[in-house]
Amino acid sequence: MKKFVNDPENFVHDMLEGVYLANQDKLRWVREYNIFYRADLPSDKVLIMQGSGSGHEPAHSMIVGPGMLDASCPGNVFAAPPMDYVLECTKILANPKGVIHLINNYQGDRMAWDMAKELAEAEYPDLKIGVVIINDDVAVQDSTWTVGRRGVAGNFFIIKALGAASEQGKSVEELVALGEKVNSYTRSMGVALSSCTPPAKGSPIFEIGDDEIEVGVGIHGEPGRRRDKIRPASEIVDELFEAIYTDLPFASGDRVAVMVNGLGGTPISELYLLYGLVAKKCAEKGLAIAKNYVGNYCTSLEMAGMSITLSKLDDEIEGYLNAPAEIPIRVF
Amino acid sequence: MKKFVNDPENFVHDMLEGVYLANQDKLRWVREYNIFYRADLPSDKVLIMQGSGSGHEPAHSMIVGPGMLDASCPGNVFAAPPMDYVLECTKILANPKGVIHLINNYQGDRMAWDMAKELAEAEYPDLKIGVVIINDDVAVQDSTWTVGRRGVAGNFFIIKALGAASEQGKSVEELVALGEKVNSYTRSMGVALSSCTPPAKGSPIFEIGDDEIEVGVGIHGEPGRRRDKIRPASEIVDELFEAIYTDLPFASGDRVAVMVNGLGGTPISELYLLYGLVAKKCAEKGLAIAKNYVGNYCTSLEMAGMSITLSKLDDEIEGYLNAPAEIPIRVF
Repeated sequence: MKKFVNDPENFVHDMLEGVYLANQDKLRWVREYNIFYRADLPSDKVLIMQGSGSGHEPAHSMIVGPGMLDASCPGNVFAAPPMDYVLECTKILANPKGVIHLINNYQGDRMAWDMAKELAEAEYPDLKIGVVIINDDVAVQDSTWTVGRRGVAGNFFIIKALGAASEQGKSVEELVALGEKVNSYTRSMGVALSSCTPPAKGSPIFEIGDDEIEVGVGIHGEPGRRRDKIRPASEIVDELFEAIYTDLPFASGDRVAVMVNGLGGTPISELYLLYGLVAKKCAEKGLAIAKNYVGNYCTSLEMAGMSITLSKLDDEIEGYLNAPAEIPIRVF
Repeated sequence: MKKFVNDPENFVHDMLEGVYLANQDKLRWVREYNIFYRADLPSDKVLIMQGSGSGHEPAHSMIVGPGMLDASCPGNVFAAPPMDYVLECTKILANPKGVIHLINNYQGDRMAWDMAKELAEAEYPDLKIGVVIINDDVAVQDSTWTVGRRGVAGNFFIIKALGAASEQGKSVEELVALGEKVNSYTRSMGVALSSCTPPAKGSPIFEIGDDEIEVGVGIHGEPGRRRDKIRPASEIVDELFEAIYTDLPFASGDRVAVMVNGLGGTPISELYLLYGLVAKKCAEKGLAIAKNYVGNYCTSLEMAGMSITLSKLDDEIEGYLNAPAEIPIRVF
């Protein structure tokens, strides 16, 4: 295993410590539960939280800030957060306006969040907790750790919309309805060129040949639709784009947000090359790209690969995507 | 070769096309010379340009915008821009206030930019062209393509400072002096865990064993100080930090900007883990981190690895680092 790591068992802690040290003015860290929450936590709005496995950074520990998540509580690498992490995080956010649980659709996550919600409601009978399940991956119906579709990089759009709408004073019920709408408009599919190695495991999560790719890969390396040989980028984009486009009644004239998401080991030069191909596919179909996102949003450690997400826009959603937001990652 | 690429010979063109399609409102593209310049190119300030090899994205094609570069003119992957690219770009920027050439210290770049400057001055006798040479890499004195030290990720700080100062109306002479000051305050060193493959070459630029690292690697894979075995992250940080820290009279109480830069294939989770270690080293030495930058700023295609940069701050430089800027890369 060739990684920048000290004690492999402490990888998540050590990574979170670096995020915290870089953002002590913006974040509060509850070390024993992997919880980050906003230093300026509002008391007059519904608060939004998410926490799936670690290893998908910047999701979700690095996107806590005004207009995005109010708190995150990730588990270990590629593992759902333990129930008590979710419970403690919910307790920190408990407030009269309520809390939203954003959950990527994996069985481990569903169980931990369901149990934590029940316990939090028992402890705080007046606390309103809204739940939004995210399942944007069109690659496969069921999967290794999933009944139904998986939640992948499209969760960015639900987080961004709900972060903005909650800042504008929307209620728990309104936010759940908005989250379900954005999720229903959002479709993703990915492809892996390489495997990746969780530090504590010390070996790759799957084997893949020097000339092979996994079409429809999951963000924890779950199998996709099939193993294929490496092909020109345009052929890969064609396949992913058609799978996404045909899954929803997209129509010529629709406005969309497009994301080309890197899985961790693919450089931004290749991601922009891919974006150019996706933009041409959108033009062919008559889709107008109102917003584009090219970069690493939801990764799988150092996996080389990418996913494409299309999210259909209406005026409401586009307004929320354009709203201001702040996260710890500094470009300048 | 397993990459997202169509025709390997057209990699740079296809990548630039993606950047352009994602930012048609912000960029103008002169396709035959790999030139991007600001759609809102100012006519009342000194204009700043840079263009080294491609393959280091986001540097420099993706950092053209207000407060950063006014134009970029990269060459092919890991190749200096041909002289006529630099000349054409200089002509586009020619204006009564003048132009700054920012040049990373490699022999190919130095020659191309020197010749282009001479020709531009012959054609525009009144044009003032200021030159700043960037050479922040402390790893080695001379190198494969360099007499003297190499310019690496520290060039971000010179670009950011000059971009801001030029927006505030500074003259060519003032900007050259500022650039030389920031460069003299900036020190970097990197380490590679893997090699990388230029698309048109089709094979790795160097070989490296499964348990080996290259300490002090150049951003084109040039040899560093030595080949070593993989070690815990803290030991790698110790070595790089000490090499940087002892190269300049940093003193306890100094304010610094810290960059942990990914080389393309290393995920942001590992970069933040490394930042935590660098922050602790700074605390040990009494250095106050006024700004931190963690991410991919100057890459080597898909190379796994990272570099650390320390840049000493004074009030003037810190003010420029805090000034507003915009680039094509969208986080939200």
